[in-house]
Amino acid sequence: MPGSSSTLRLPTVAHAGEFGLINAIRSILPQGSHVIVGPGDDCAVVRGQETCPVISTDLMVEGRHFRRDWSPAADIGARAAAQNLSDVNAMGGTATSLTLGLALPHDLPAAWVMEFVRGFAEEAGSVGASVVGGDLTSSDTLMLAVTVLGSCPAPPVLRSGARPGDTVAIAGRQGWSAAGLALLERGVSEPQELLKAYHRPTPPYAAGPEAARAGATVMLDVSDGLVADARHLAQASNVVIDLWTDELRLVGPPASGPAGTGVDRMQCILSGGDDHPLLACFNRTAELPDGWTQVGAVLPADGGQPMVTVDGEAYDGPAGWTHF
Amino acid sequence: MPGSSSTLRLPTVAHAGEFGLINAIRSILPQGSHVIVGPGDDCAVVRGQETCPVISTDLMVEGRHFRRDWSPAADIGARAAAQNLSDVNAMGGTATSLTLGLALPHDLPAAWVMEFVRGFAEEAGSVGASVVGGDLTSSDTLMLAVTVLGSCPAPPVLRSGARPGDTVAIAGRQGWSAAGLALLERGVSEPQELLKAYHRPTPPYAAGPEAARAGATVMLDVSDGLVADARHLAQASNVVIDLWTDELRLVGPPASGPAGTGVDRMQCILSGGDDHPLLACFNRTAELPDGWTQVGAVLPADGGQPMVTVDGEAYDGPAGWTHF
Repeated sequence: MPGSSSTLRLPTVAHAGEFGLINAIRSILPQGSHVIVGPGDDCAVVRGQETCPVISTDLMVEGRHFRRDWSPAADIGARAAAQNLSDVNAMGGTATSLTLGLALPHDLPAAWVMEFVRGFAEEAGSVGASVVGGDLTSSDTLMLAVTVLGSCPAPPVLRSGARPGDTVAIAGRQGWSAAGLALLERGVSEPQELLKAYHRPTPPYAAGPEAARAGATVMLDVSDGLVADARHLAQASNVVIDLWTDELRLVGPPASGPAGTGVDRMQCILSGGDDHPLLACFNRTAELPDGWTQVGAVLPADGGQPMVTVDGEAYDGPAGWTHF
Repeated sequence: MPGSSSTLRLPTVAHAGEFGLINAIRSILPQGSHVIVGPGDDCAVVRGQETCPVISTDLMVEGRHFRRDWSPAADIGARAAAQNLSDVNAMGGTATSLTLGLALPHDLPAAWVMEFVRGFAEEAGSVGASVVGGDLTSSDTLMLAVTVLGSCPAPPVLRSGARPGDTVAIAGRQGWSAAGLALLERGVSEPQELLKAYHRPTPPYAAGPEAARAGATVMLDVSDGLVADARHLAQASNVVIDLWTDELRLVGPPASGPAGTGVDRMQCILSGGDDHPLLACFNRTAELPDGWTQVGAVLPADGGQPMVTVDGEAYDGPAGWTHF
């Protein structure tokens, strides 16, 4: 277990870093023959009958993933559901059930919890998913743990499998939420549509299954940042993903939004997360389904590193969110 | 939604209480037709092909559910897995997959995380379950979120369905973990077998499916306290559950363990949690499977409240753990 032992030499979680820790952890987890896709993709896929059950888990911590003074409780609830439902979408699947774990401070208003759950239930219901269980405990830190169960067609659409020449395409908005967050951080409360995009994302839930039917070679949902997540595709597929800024502007926030606020629109698009659009690759001869926009192309990683380039150039700006 | 509006009048989570909050939350969660068992049992059950997929989630918070200065990391990991695997056991099912969410302080030793995961993986592997996914985030409070996916026979063994005249039986130890915890709290480090029972429970994983095959009418795993959890069966089935102390001593910690330490052995048995034995009812004519001990009987709740009695008398001692 090389990952494990090298990580053990690093004293703290912050030293090991998110991906160092994940790799070390993965190396010691049992994987039975019923596991078709284990840790590392948007969801795990386990063997089923005609379709594959998929499962995914996310944690949200107050002060890191949301702020109660910035977002209404119902929007935080909807966002918690959306980011998990979106993981199933990214496998080309359909969510059926959610569980909700709540770790709550004693003095948290009960009304906040009920509003949170109302938003969560609303978002789940919007795609026909049920909330089938959960857990409730007290904690000094408010934290939410959501697990989604769904089914996807066999084979599911993974992160590896993009080929040079493929079209890179996006479904849904990208950079809107980041622009809204940047405005909130500056105390700016307009334009409303950007703040709303931050509070309550609108992932393109129908686009995942449609892309799977259209033969998408790889797919994920953009949650940590466009470049950061595209890098996952590049690495898993051992290719270069070249993103095109002219086309990205089509799915980005309106130019008038950040204008005059000091918010860099293209940086929101390239490094923003939380909109949960889908990023996928398709054979260049495939017709993109409705709602998909070409925003780049897959190039060979000739002798070089798998990487993400922007308009053909290496990108050295912030790629997205890191947890440690 | 009466539960919801009444809870909203209570200002804080602590005022609403665990079950008040759960009931209010449940009343606003969507439940599709594929949900066979929703929130409120050990696991949720969703419609599958020949067997039913079951899913359950648990949270563990440092300082409340475990202490790093009391238990080795590997034992905390094993315990986190065990309490979730035990929920599937309590449905008469078999666990197949787990997800693991880790919210970790920056300065947590990476070696602690790896040891924790090693214990978690070991316990999962002991029943043939895989760890298929998870999430990792930073948090001021160390918290663990575990979800288990499994399958159970149709119909699963629920909490409602106990009938007057049924035999009440236990598989596994009860009160050992609580005795170990009480010793730790007193700074006593002997006997080792009780401390070990606290650090790393040994749920009777085979007993659940066996009880289901033997026709158990109801079943759950004792995690919050024997009386508290028996009360769930009594209420869901609208019966009185009478527990017998002479028989409970057979599954309790050895009398010599707590002797002279001020620890009340019978209180450990009646109100202790965390051993994860199974508590089930069987038709009185049924032969109990190996490993099951009769510890009581089901009586009618004639005109009265469903309740738990001990040796025929109302019980007013501590029933178990409450979260708020």
